[in-house]
Amino acid sequence: MNRFVVRSVMQSLMNGRSSIINRQVCRAAVVGQGVQLSGQQNGMPFASVELRRMSNWGISGPVEQMDKKEKLPLATEEQKAKGMMVSSYWGISRPKITREDGTEWPWNCFMPWETYKANISIDLGKHHVPKNFGDKFAYRTVKILRLPTDIFFKRRYGCRAVMLETVAAVPGMVGGMMLHLKSLRRFQQSGGWIKALLEEAENERMHLMTMVELVQPKWYERLLVLAVQGVFFNAFFVLYVLSPKLAHRIVGYLEEEAIHSYTEFLKDIESGAIENVPAPAIAIDYWRLPKDATLKDVITVIRADEAHHRDVNHFASADYVLMLMLGFNILVTRDIHFQGKELREAPAPLGYH
Amino acid sequence: MNRFVVRSVMQSLMNGRSSIINRQVCRAAVVGQGVQLSGQQNGMPFASVELRRMSNWGISGPVEQMDKKEKLPLATEEQKAKGMMVSSYWGISRPKITREDGTEWPWNCFMPWETYKANISIDLGKHHVPKNFGDKFAYRTVKILRLPTDIFFKRRYGCRAVMLETVAAVPGMVGGMMLHLKSLRRFQQSGGWIKALLEEAENERMHLMTMVELVQPKWYERLLVLAVQGVFFNAFFVLYVLSPKLAHRIVGYLEEEAIHSYTEFLKDIESGAIENVPAPAIAIDYWRLPKDATLKDVITVIRADEAHHRDVNHFASADYVLMLMLGFNILVTRDIHFQGKELREAPAPLGYH
Repeated sequence: MNRFVVRSVMQSLMNGRSSIINRQVCRAAVVGQGVQLSGQQNGMPFASVELRRMSNWGISGPVEQMDKKEKLPLATEEQKAKGMMVSSYWGISRPKITREDGTEWPWNCFMPWETYKANISIDLGKHHVPKNFGDKFAYRTVKILRLPTDIFFKRRYGCRAVMLETVAAVPGMVGGMMLHLKSLRRFQQSGGWIKALLEEAENERMHLMTMVELVQPKWYERLLVLAVQGVFFNAFFVLYVLSPKLAHRIVGYLEEEAIHSYTEFLKDIESGAIENVPAPAIAIDYWRLPKDATLKDVITVIRADEAHHRDVNHFASADYVLMLMLGFNILVTRDIHFQGKELREAPAPLGYH
Repeated sequence: MNRFVVRSVMQSLMNGRSSIINRQVCRAAVVGQGVQLSGQQNGMPFASVELRRMSNWGISGPVEQMDKKEKLPLATEEQKAKGMMVSSYWGISRPKITREDGTEWPWNCFMPWETYKANISIDLGKHHVPKNFGDKFAYRTVKILRLPTDIFFKRRYGCRAVMLETVAAVPGMVGGMMLHLKSLRRFQQSGGWIKALLEEAENERMHLMTMVELVQPKWYERLLVLAVQGVFFNAFFVLYVLSPKLAHRIVGYLEEEAIHSYTEFLKDIESGAIENVPAPAIAIDYWRLPKDATLKDVITVIRADEAHHRDVNHFASADYVLMLMLGFNILVTRDIHFQGKELREAPAPLGYH
């Protein structure tokens, strides 16, 4: 996402736009509406800023008129007619957002500015060769964990992917939360790693939201998900307390297995064993796929995401001494920073999908 | 943040920029460097996209030359000279980012595109009058929790704020995590609430990062933070399992108390009891404050943030039937959606600081 926002921040600054001014201008506008709803004269800046900023995306309601208070009753009527949502008497509202083609943005779980084009050129074969005992333990653990999955799902890769993603979305959230709490306890900055890991969890969750559009899990698979999450969340939580390094290594290897599974998935699509159905709408919007994208395209971009998570987690587990040897630019510029050998010392790969 | 990114996404799309093309073009460029580091021919797109996209922000390294492979050794040398960071043999790198004035961006825990101007025009006096037993229980609990804080800190509002923020940053993370896990278990979308609550937690953490620049906590205060986090995190976790509605109500009231504390803080600054020192650099960058901003400005924007969190949490705790009665636009457009009366049914106020 970062790759989009930087330009806009700069532009906003260059244009000398003060969002506070926008907020106040628009706020005055939305107040009229707010009063009718609840008598609240405030709390609308979120909505109003969005109205102003999002107007390029085609927000419902006559944005231009909103600076003129006397026109507000009319404006409100128009907004009502256009079905603008006002969700709370606490004055928090969200305007209707549309795609660039003018059609309504149908998703609440992700916004247009969180969409991206996956980097499918990433090396899928990259593998971290287990070096020390921790690496070998992590590698073996993942290989053992894979056995029951192979036995249970066989080549039903749709169901397999659903299960996989309900598990894969957990470590990022646990890691992000643990680093967040650590940052609070120690009054230390996180080096961006909290956000990077939470981004990973969100991305994995989007994979799941996509897969369930394609595969309706059966009741016993839903039960299995409950059980697996209950066990895996707690196990990973404890592991992250004991050794974040080992935890990230395990995730790195889990992602390597995920890449393997999705590659097999693609083989079955190519061989015709799995029907190459049209891509679900949510996937087309999230990865900016062409309108006629198919399941094959979806699995390809999901696999690319997993490859990025593999890199991030092997990176997060990396020995900073080794990093020091190899990252000679760091050696030149940041060697002192790396004496601590803590994750937060290395800038996090934000927006690295 | 949202208010900035929307324009840029639209522009990127209008310009027909395919980030994948960018990635490949730039990737070819960074590979040369990657090879010297590690023999990895990939994994650099994060860095390379950033290089391309962030060039407006003044990224180190000759971005324009990077499409020409033969020039890469030179480019790499130049990048080395300019101290571009290459953080891992896994090929994940982050370019040097600068402010719009060309000076280096010194923060890893937040990026230029996450900065914003606080909406200080929000109503600080807004109070949710306890209606049912849950509300009254939440209100009393918060009032009782405030007693020991008053006794321990008295009018040492700096230390008080540090303690406050280490607590205030917990609920958003717990709530976000719980909704994330629920979303995975039930294969349901979150309505954006996961992100909204995580944004709240991040914002509170930034408050803490700011306050510790001003107040160096004493050893016994650090101990107290450890103890309080240990108790509060687990208590809030259990509470959120039992009743998210009650949990959000309590946070809403905690935020009302926070606003009160920061108002007292400001009174002491105005009376001269607390010296109005210059604002720390991190606060000037995060809230885009003027270079000559002072502690008073910082506390004012932090208080505004707390007021926004108050609204979000009272909103999250709101009874959807009541919302249905008041939000007549919802009644018109989304009544069926609201039969479920789940948080995810109401669009989350993303980027609502």
